[in-house]
Amino acid sequence: MKHNNKKPLILITNDDGVHAKGIQCLIEVIKPLGEIVVLAPEGPRSGMSSAITPYVPLRIFRLKQEENLTVYSCTGTPVDCVKLAINEILDRKPDLVISGINHGSNAAICIIYSGTMGAALEGCIFGIPSFGVSLTDHSSNADFSEAVKYARIVAEKVLEEGLPKGICLNVNVPNEGEIKGMKICTQTPGRWVSEFMKSKDGSGKDIYWLTGVFENFTPDDKNTDEWALTNGYVSIVPSQIDLTAYQMVDRLKHWENA
Amino acid sequence: MKHNNKKPLILITNDDGVHAKGIQCLIEVIKPLGEIVVLAPEGPRSGMSSAITPYVPLRIFRLKQEENLTVYSCTGTPVDCVKLAINEILDRKPDLVISGINHGSNAAICIIYSGTMGAALEGCIFGIPSFGVSLTDHSSNADFSEAVKYARIVAEKVLEEGLPKGICLNVNVPNEGEIKGMKICTQTPGRWVSEFMKSKDGSGKDIYWLTGVFENFTPDDKNTDEWALTNGYVSIVPSQIDLTAYQMVDRLKHWENA
Repeated sequence: MKHNNKKPLILITNDDGVHAKGIQCLIEVIKPLGEIVVLAPEGPRSGMSSAITPYVPLRIFRLKQEENLTVYSCTGTPVDCVKLAINEILDRKPDLVISGINHGSNAAICIIYSGTMGAALEGCIFGIPSFGVSLTDHSSNADFSEAVKYARIVAEKVLEEGLPKGICLNVNVPNEGEIKGMKICTQTPGRWVSEFMKSKDGSGKDIYWLTGVFENFTPDDKNTDEWALTNGYVSIVPSQIDLTAYQMVDRLKHWENA
Repeated sequence: MKHNNKKPLILITNDDGVHAKGIQCLIEVIKPLGEIVVLAPEGPRSGMSSAITPYVPLRIFRLKQEENLTVYSCTGTPVDCVKLAINEILDRKPDLVISGINHGSNAAICIIYSGTMGAALEGCIFGIPSFGVSLTDHSSNADFSEAVKYARIVAEKVLEEGLPKGICLNVNVPNEGEIKGMKICTQTPGRWVSEFMKSKDGSGKDIYWLTGVFENFTPDDKNTDEWALTNGYVSIVPSQIDLTAYQMVDRLKHWENA
């Protein structure tokens, strides 16, 4: 496909699937900002992280083509969507990748499991300013009216200012009460506990359903994204694709003599 | 199950599946170091990153129980394996999580897509010293004789010295030539390009197979893991689960007034 106009080219994807309310609301609010190409999974892909699909062939379906908006679905993961769009669909590099709006929080350690953030990190790997945006409400009919406002603000800021190489944004929007504004945060240290509900299948065999509760290691730290969300702020965590713990490189150097 | 002896408890998993040669070689070489519990996917889960399984129930199968070695498989992802082991199988926290030995490199940006490293990062999230280990040879019958030597050295070092909270190790072993030793490295900046082979299915419809070539942005940087592997060293990248780009937090603070 050809994209010859000067409008910003914006790639939109998500992990709840192309028909989810969150991505539909996002498309509507972002449409005025440029030429929009949507390539999103055909169904839910929550918790897919940065998973890719090495052993199964992928398929792409064009669902809609109108002025400045083309919508595709694919059979792959959120990261596959970004890869397919950039490698196979778009004739130029997008100016922005937005993933979301996710139904449910991706704050704290959830960034690691999140398909929404997997797609945003993937845009970042391609050197494209990228962010993921999530609402702290899992319900399929969640109210995205506040979330779209902030998604639009962040999109405009990123289009205007860009983002440094290797850094994308993890944006989360609280679901309750009046929103006080945006807060630039750090990733809350914590983990999930009590993660499985043990149950039985129809023939009496043990099965395990993923569930769990988030344990916040630093609930009073006002710099963290969980604190921001609990206190009525939209949290924005600048997040990087280089996982190197630089402070450890020197500390382990003595192993080189082992 | 009960683990009442004083030996270190070591959890082993992988992403190539419990029957892969890499994990079998790893089990053999690690067995003398402690009580070993293996919980690995029943089949291949390459490229699963930190994916979890929210919508499908998981099953666990016990395959083997002998002195100091119990082997389970499960229907989930590598991260599910670590979660199931810690939440449902083990009666105490392991002293070490090892994921591997992977058939194929997980250096550079592959840490983000790798199920092997997903499991190692998960052990780290639980506060357990953890590492992933990979051999730069994809073949199912790869020669793991050098890789197991280094897996054992790293396991002994980590059991002895521990690892700081939030940091695990990404260990890769080169497949060719004489190995010169271990090198503590940084994650190579780069990305995959030319990622799909377009093909047709049996009814003539377009399909896309994931493939690609790694583009190294800094091939001459002797600090990186790709340089180490190319030059005959085992690469060890200390890697962290906190993705916050701290240097960006202040730079974006002006957005709070938007």
